[in-house]
Amino acid sequence: MQIYPVILCGGRGTRLWPVSRKAVPKPFLPLMGEETMFEQTLRRFARDARFASPLVMAGATHVDLIKAQLGDAQGARLVVEPEARNTGPAIALAAALLPEDAIMLICPSDHHIADSNAFRAAAFAAAQMARQDYLVSFGIAADRPETGYGYLRRGEPLLGGFVVREFIEKPDLARATAYLASGEYSWNGGIFAFRAGHFLAELAMHRPEMARLVAEAVADGVSEGAIFRPAPKPFSAIASESVDYAVMENTMRATMVLADMGWSDIGSWAALADALADEADEAGNIKSGQVDLIGCNRVLAISDGPRISAIDLEDVCIIVSDGEILVTTRNGAQAVGKLPSAVCQ
Amino acid sequence: MQIYPVILCGGRGTRLWPVSRKAVPKPFLPLMGEETMFEQTLRRFARDARFASPLVMAGATHVDLIKAQLGDAQGARLVVEPEARNTGPAIALAAALLPEDAIMLICPSDHHIADSNAFRAAAFAAAQMARQDYLVSFGIAADRPETGYGYLRRGEPLLGGFVVREFIEKPDLARATAYLASGEYSWNGGIFAFRAGHFLAELAMHRPEMARLVAEAVADGVSEGAIFRPAPKPFSAIASESVDYAVMENTMRATMVLADMGWSDIGSWAALADALADEADEAGNIKSGQVDLIGCNRVLAISDGPRISAIDLEDVCIIVSDGEILVTTRNGAQAVGKLPSAVCQ
Repeated sequence: MQIYPVILCGGRGTRLWPVSRKAVPKPFLPLMGEETMFEQTLRRFARDARFASPLVMAGATHVDLIKAQLGDAQGARLVVEPEARNTGPAIALAAALLPEDAIMLICPSDHHIADSNAFRAAAFAAAQMARQDYLVSFGIAADRPETGYGYLRRGEPLLGGFVVREFIEKPDLARATAYLASGEYSWNGGIFAFRAGHFLAELAMHRPEMARLVAEAVADGVSEGAIFRPAPKPFSAIASESVDYAVMENTMRATMVLADMGWSDIGSWAALADALADEADEAGNIKSGQVDLIGCNRVLAISDGPRISAIDLEDVCIIVSDGEILVTTRNGAQAVGKLPSAVCQ
Repeated sequence: MQIYPVILCGGRGTRLWPVSRKAVPKPFLPLMGEETMFEQTLRRFARDARFASPLVMAGATHVDLIKAQLGDAQGARLVVEPEARNTGPAIALAAALLPEDAIMLICPSDHHIADSNAFRAAAFAAAQMARQDYLVSFGIAADRPETGYGYLRRGEPLLGGFVVREFIEKPDLARATAYLASGEYSWNGGIFAFRAGHFLAELAMHRPEMARLVAEAVADGVSEGAIFRPAPKPFSAIASESVDYAVMENTMRATMVLADMGWSDIGSWAALADALADEADEAGNIKSGQVDLIGCNRVLAISDGPRISAIDLEDVCIIVSDGEILVTTRNGAQAVGKLPSAVCQ
């Protein structure tokens, strides 16, 4: 059994502004080490014959970035979405383009996974369930009462994983704290395994209009070498919807695998600072570029040129990129996308 | 009786780095409104016949700045110090160049004084005492337990002012708090009134070598229009010393006047923020240049070009100037001069 990685390259590029921009969003930036997160996502499957060549789902504006970064991922296919329609239609497109019995592994391209072996082990466990026509979510081991993610509640053990007892949207802090304490809940990391034909059958049941329009967009689409362009008219007519809303919360066959793999969605500068903790000095400061710090603790300071001098700060992120200067507390980092400068790029 | 303003333009330009630099230190920057602090210092005496034309004491590197900013201060004379030797030798030079009976008013050029009338009233009270051969300090009304200034302790009332009972160097916070509570102490603002001849007599008593070398530097100096250049050799041979150490702490005739005039030495970005409090918005933020703030309180954000975006900060100063970026808490602002970038300009 081969697993078909389906790599989703979406995102508006606002949460890590000013480094990530609409033109170069998070997946295509070398935020963690030398490689971009897209390249790291590809590398998790490289040189492992149990994985087929990946299918990359992306918007037209990022085609050149993707081509440049595909590197030696030979045989990769690229599907260019005419407009962004969230994860439901993107995954449906991929399912319609793969063999009916293909086991698809849906992977966002902008997540950091420290332990690739744990990831691959979870992927194979998920694939076993997907082969039995379960829709499988990755339940990420939670280590803090995060209010920015959805949660999965575990039910009975099943086939090496668990039945999903409940999908829960972003909770408030009190509930998130209770979830963490109970041990029954995992984060919904947006990583899934499906059998392509089964996914399409469930989609036809829960979102028949989406299924119909996706089939039409594929039937009238155009292949050009390794690039597939779905027909713009039917695809653009699809309502934007996440796979969670469109399918996962409606299916009777939702299961999950547990994944403890050093996962982070690097969803803010604070999350990046956490993921880079190994590179911090004794005071917890992380520096990149010309940076002088006096009396600072847990400061993330990144500059692509001008020198940053900082004094007496705690838990602050200072990001200088392409003529823009961002200064935020770690807590404030989740509001970066609301800045006028991030919204109106 | 005319008063001769003696304006001291010293300073290393480190405490308000990166806006102030060695080349353009604080006096010559428009930090408070449209005018520079040097121009504001001149304007306190302008169009008031009770003041003679000022004597400006400065280093060679700032002569062009001073000429450009003297404006309509006709008759001003400029004394160019070959090397910086602190306030003692600078004031001695001025005293040696003025008539023996001239009442000198020593004014730093980088202090902000909100109430010019109160300043002039204090100056005339001080001049009355100086005429009687007292060495008169301005005691600035203290409104917080500041540890960055020296203090004057009041003694008996005398001639509309007070005898100085004690000169106190920068205290620790406990002592500064006690001084503030007692009401007997004022800040030593570095503003003085002397009769020129009397000052030189005291100097000859307490620092005979300094007095001798200053007399020699004046005797061998060169006048060129409104500019006087003391002889470099004797002047450079003088030991660097503040007027407080050289004379004030040794004289038997130290007196003081009280001055409640909205004084600030703008000795840090935090002090500038305090002095600009009238320009703050409801959240206490002060902005200059392209600045977007979300959830910030009491932030001072100044940029000469690149946009600053800040989130969730309190009591922080962000200064962007000439390609340098400074981020500091208000408390940390006093350490700006210790930054490698400020030291090695």
